[in-house]
Amino acid sequence: MISTPLDDLDRAILKLLKKDARLTIAEISNQLKKPESTVHFRIKKLQERGVIEKYTIILGEPIRPRELALVVLEVDKPIIEDFLDRYMEYVTKTLSGFPEVLFVAKSGKEKIVALVGGEDRDKLLKFIEENIESIPTLRSVQVLPISEIKKGDEISGFLAEV
Amino acid sequence: MISTPLDDLDRAILKLLKKDARLTIAEISNQLKKPESTVHFRIKKLQERGVIEKYTIILGEPIRPRELALVVLEVDKPIIEDFLDRYMEYVTKTLSGFPEVLFVAKSGKEKIVALVGGEDRDKLLKFIEENIESIPTLRSVQVLPISEIKKGDEISGFLAEV
Repeated sequence: MISTPLDDLDRAILKLLKKDARLTIAEISNQLKKPESTVHFRIKKLQERGVIEKYTIILGEPIRPRELALVVLEVDKPIIEDFLDRYMEYVTKTLSGFPEVLFVAKSGKEKIVALVGGEDRDKLLKFIEENIESIPTLRSVQVLPISEIKKGDEISGFLAEV
Repeated sequence: MISTPLDDLDRAILKLLKKDARLTIAEISNQLKKPESTVHFRIKKLQERGVIEKYTIILGEPIRPRELALVVLEVDKPIIEDFLDRYMEYVTKTLSGFPEVLFVAKSGKEKIVALVGGEDRDKLLKFIEENIESIPTLRSVQVLPISEIKKGDEISGFLAEV
């Protein structure tokens, strides 16, 4: 997976930065009881190796969608098989264009999964009905409203558009 | 949704920080052609209001799972209905405990969705078979391997554990 494996210090630094990327070298060095020069060198290396890809912000409650639903779409197999790829491309592109749609991925040749957000349950389901279920040539649309997140609950604060 | 709505400047600042949270006030002020004092004040307010929840890092390719699958579980309805909640609690907790499981959520009373990562397709499917499909009292397990992400492709770099 990775050419030089990460050691405990690398992981400790990454854990701290995941919690708060604004920590200074001095603060990290203090918390981990390692010299500043070592911490500085390690972070530099982690960035160079692409282990740290970027620094970003997570948006909070006031700007996150309150309700989420996972949608699993299955597109109808066209008579001319070549059209399937094009159609998958069209549907995923259409979905990606909506700011309400936070995540879109193809699953195999005929399925698409999407994570959709809305201000409340009614608006979310209305959006799905009007903008997703109405897409032509879908064989099935399975809507899974998210009722409680147990792990990864900041996902919408990470994926939400501004 | 939000007491004081965000204006264009707030959104412009948030967009820049999403792309690179290490930008300095001076750099943001420069890019947006606004005084540093204004930018400083706006960021302070965005933090206070919880619009910016936190600063974090996104992990890069070398440390991300290469393959992802979405898993939709349906638990069997027990004869004593009260057990359903406890059972849902048990299954979501079990799933959350695995570092391979990046995201876990309940969907309604009987369903659970999870995003699972693995080094390659075989290891991922083996993990799901051995650790998820084997959980007792599941009525069904639907595995949707992710073949191509069209939107939100940094999701695994955000959710992956160190």
